[in-house]
Amino acid sequence: MSEERSASAAAPAGAYDELRRELRETEIFASVGALLAWDQEVMMPPAATPLRAEQAALLGELVHERRTSERFGDLLARAEQDHADGADARVAANLREIRRNYDKAVKIPTSLVRQLAETTTHAQHAWKDARERSDFEGFRPWLERVVDLDRRKAECLAGPQTAEPYEALLDVYEPGARTADIVAAFTDLRGRLTPLIQEIASAPRRPDDRIHRLPIPIDRQIAFNHQVAARVGFDLEAGRLDTSTHPFCQGVGPGDTRLTTRYREEGFFDALSSTLHEVGHGLYEQNLPKQEALGEPLSESVSLGIHESQSRLWENLVGRSRPFWEWALPEARREFGAAVQGIEVDEVYGAMNFVEPGLIRVESDEATYNLHIMLRFDLERAMLHGELAVRDLPGAWNERIRADLGLEVPDDRRGCLQDVHWSMAAIGYFPTYTLGNLYAAQFWTEIGKQIPDLEARISRGDFSALLGWLVEKVHVHGRRYTAPELCAKLTGTSLSAAPLMTYLEAKLRPIYGI
Amino acid sequence: MSEERSASAAAPAGAYDELRRELRETEIFASVGALLAWDQEVMMPPAATPLRAEQAALLGELVHERRTSERFGDLLARAEQDHADGADARVAANLREIRRNYDKAVKIPTSLVRQLAETTTHAQHAWKDARERSDFEGFRPWLERVVDLDRRKAECLAGPQTAEPYEALLDVYEPGARTADIVAAFTDLRGRLTPLIQEIASAPRRPDDRIHRLPIPIDRQIAFNHQVAARVGFDLEAGRLDTSTHPFCQGVGPGDTRLTTRYREEGFFDALSSTLHEVGHGLYEQNLPKQEALGEPLSESVSLGIHESQSRLWENLVGRSRPFWEWALPEARREFGAAVQGIEVDEVYGAMNFVEPGLIRVESDEATYNLHIMLRFDLERAMLHGELAVRDLPGAWNERIRADLGLEVPDDRRGCLQDVHWSMAAIGYFPTYTLGNLYAAQFWTEIGKQIPDLEARISRGDFSALLGWLVEKVHVHGRRYTAPELCAKLTGTSLSAAPLMTYLEAKLRPIYGI
Repeated sequence: MSEERSASAAAPAGAYDELRRELRETEIFASVGALLAWDQEVMMPPAATPLRAEQAALLGELVHERRTSERFGDLLARAEQDHADGADARVAANLREIRRNYDKAVKIPTSLVRQLAETTTHAQHAWKDARERSDFEGFRPWLERVVDLDRRKAECLAGPQTAEPYEALLDVYEPGARTADIVAAFTDLRGRLTPLIQEIASAPRRPDDRIHRLPIPIDRQIAFNHQVAARVGFDLEAGRLDTSTHPFCQGVGPGDTRLTTRYREEGFFDALSSTLHEVGHGLYEQNLPKQEALGEPLSESVSLGIHESQSRLWENLVGRSRPFWEWALPEARREFGAAVQGIEVDEVYGAMNFVEPGLIRVESDEATYNLHIMLRFDLERAMLHGELAVRDLPGAWNERIRADLGLEVPDDRRGCLQDVHWSMAAIGYFPTYTLGNLYAAQFWTEIGKQIPDLEARISRGDFSALLGWLVEKVHVHGRRYTAPELCAKLTGTSLSAAPLMTYLEAKLRPIYGI
Repeated sequence: MSEERSASAAAPAGAYDELRRELRETEIFASVGALLAWDQEVMMPPAATPLRAEQAALLGELVHERRTSERFGDLLARAEQDHADGADARVAANLREIRRNYDKAVKIPTSLVRQLAETTTHAQHAWKDARERSDFEGFRPWLERVVDLDRRKAECLAGPQTAEPYEALLDVYEPGARTADIVAAFTDLRGRLTPLIQEIASAPRRPDDRIHRLPIPIDRQIAFNHQVAARVGFDLEAGRLDTSTHPFCQGVGPGDTRLTTRYREEGFFDALSSTLHEVGHGLYEQNLPKQEALGEPLSESVSLGIHESQSRLWENLVGRSRPFWEWALPEARREFGAAVQGIEVDEVYGAMNFVEPGLIRVESDEATYNLHIMLRFDLERAMLHGELAVRDLPGAWNERIRADLGLEVPDDRRGCLQDVHWSMAAIGYFPTYTLGNLYAAQFWTEIGKQIPDLEARISRGDFSALLGWLVEKVHVHGRRYTAPELCAKLTGTSLSAAPLMTYLEAKLRPIYGI
């Protein structure tokens, strides 16, 4: 033992440095996979689909092999031994997360990885078909297989700390999160959100939403969206903004962050919201320390919840605020001229905060959105735990929509078939959306305290102090802290529904005169 | 021996099939590299350059390792043994070319591969700088290193059949070509081309070239170029047409062939020429049997010369012909309206065949272009063989331009620094351009005999018989035949300057009234 110790003391950085080189190289291959994924959605000709499937599969295999190789495991063990004293907190955090990823990766047998890949490829096709024809029965056998596989995956991943199978899946997307904490936060949020939404439904005033029918030529919208992205701080020399059916952000690697949004001639305000959302993700990707620590957890995002907090903050807390439109509307007038004449800031502000229960999650407003998430969280958890049979999903879904939103679901296309996630076996993913909303509001409250003139700055189109705060407090740390640790560090308290509710109440009550 | 025979007879396809699987998998990785290269020129944000260099290097290494591995060599040897009887001509051709590629790849030591990669990366940067500042001395040390490395590469590649070092490099781009044959064809071509160009210079008539100053909005040009590409037979569902500084064609893989062109508002006719050129390459790529034989020589192009014959055929033989404009001009009138009113077919036909010696290869006309190539062929061959010192290149270049084209070179930017090839260590590449012109004219003469109503078809915008001929006679064979074999098979004779000269004389004399 003492011999080993002295040997490692002689060259303490050896294994760790080699481990970092290995991670970097693997990540370079993974970044190629990320580029393939972007290209597939934005550029690839349709006939290239079979080739792309082979390219992605071979690269994916290569990356998985490198991440789970015996050699890698040995290197990691040696690096841990060399740094067992934990003297350097950054190195300790890095090793903790590398170990976490490695243990997770090797716990899932290759046969299950392959079955998941194959099944979800077919399940996604089946889901697309089934959604189009609103035919749940066409998707049911695939969803049953997916739930089974996810259950097996949860069994593989579960550790002594895992409270229930669902928690093992949640942990993939939101490392360290506990189901019980999420249930508590969601229950609190639900209890305060539901009466607010009901009050709004019978409010004496409603904002005018005619701006959502204003036609603006798409090429002009494209120019404007690029301008806003750049102004907010997204570096277009180190990224792109393109068009795709479903907006997304792909952080390919250092110097290469690619966003997409979508335009409709009468959808200028929706397009800008989508752009701001993806810009939020993109700013996070661009400011993670990827140059220095590519492939290491120290250069990766904390969790999907924290990633989503960044997108929601720019989309909602900034993009649906009055100060933002005090700056943006005159800019839009300059760009679009007559098309937006006669529209005032209050009108845009009201219309951007229109609250109305709807059937579709991705079209829903800032308040009701979270009810959509809670519904999915409850139902996927029940399916995974065998408390809800897949065949009973449509009934359970429709009942919840009736209870929560007071709406009748006319068909499964606008019901339980609307989202892609389950066809991708991504059970455990949905709650991170609402976690993002909660974290965003909680950070925002703190930012307001630390940057007292924030609103004045935003109304001048000055986003630098805000972005500076996010970079310094969130982005540069990578995965050094877990989400709960980061939240406590930045806001002094643990995750709570209070900041989001306070923010929504303060904004929506005056708009609706309640 | 007899035991081995019976063993191989029992499972004759074993090693060969495994070899094909291996080639396919390696090609999938190579195809990802091709996509990276396309993205770099067309989409990549500038800040991603260092990441892209790492991505390309790692993938390139992986592909090179797979192509030169001992395991691969063993498989190849076993497959050769299994098929030693040569009963199946397609298999025999495939194995012959796989062997050729393998022997070439393993002959170059990894250290030289790395030195070439490193040196050319720097040399290309130095060349860009030097060209901008017209500073040959800034590029000279790099060119000296490149010539040295290419000389070493030639030494590695040379075999008992190699007549001179240059031939070993030529063979990389034009498998099986002999320097002596090229010298003979070029000498013949030069002897007949020079007097024609001189006659044209003092001709009584010159076409009006005002159409090259006609402004047409770029978005309309883009639509028109897509329309023409599709009409000619390029499948836009299995490819793309984008914009880049230097037009190119990237055959990524089956279902994915990507072309670029470039537009200037007053450069409609140039843009269409570029598009037709790349479409010619693209049609070849799309019709090679990549689905069935991906990664195998049977699905690869014969040589750069044959590839170029396809692009030149569509760009020049079709795109500068009268029948083409009888169809295309009315189409352009429909698309562009007033912008092209009052222009007649004869005017376009004349202007598309304007012949005038110029300093820049890529801007030169169909006739003088070949003189630019011969000059480069002679000078690079002399440099490689140590007969021309790199420091004497500018003088030698300028003297040749004076002798061949009667022009004074005002600076090296418009002289020996104009092309990228030498900075990429691509000595041996240039002659394939003129080989392409020669093959194109020779094929064209044959096509004219076999499709008697070819001109009438083209004037109706019907390109199907022409494309059908090329697909059937050239594309589907992949690399089954060498270029000289293919030429003999299709035209009954070996490569000759006569068809190109006959074609040029027949076209240019009436236009210039000589």
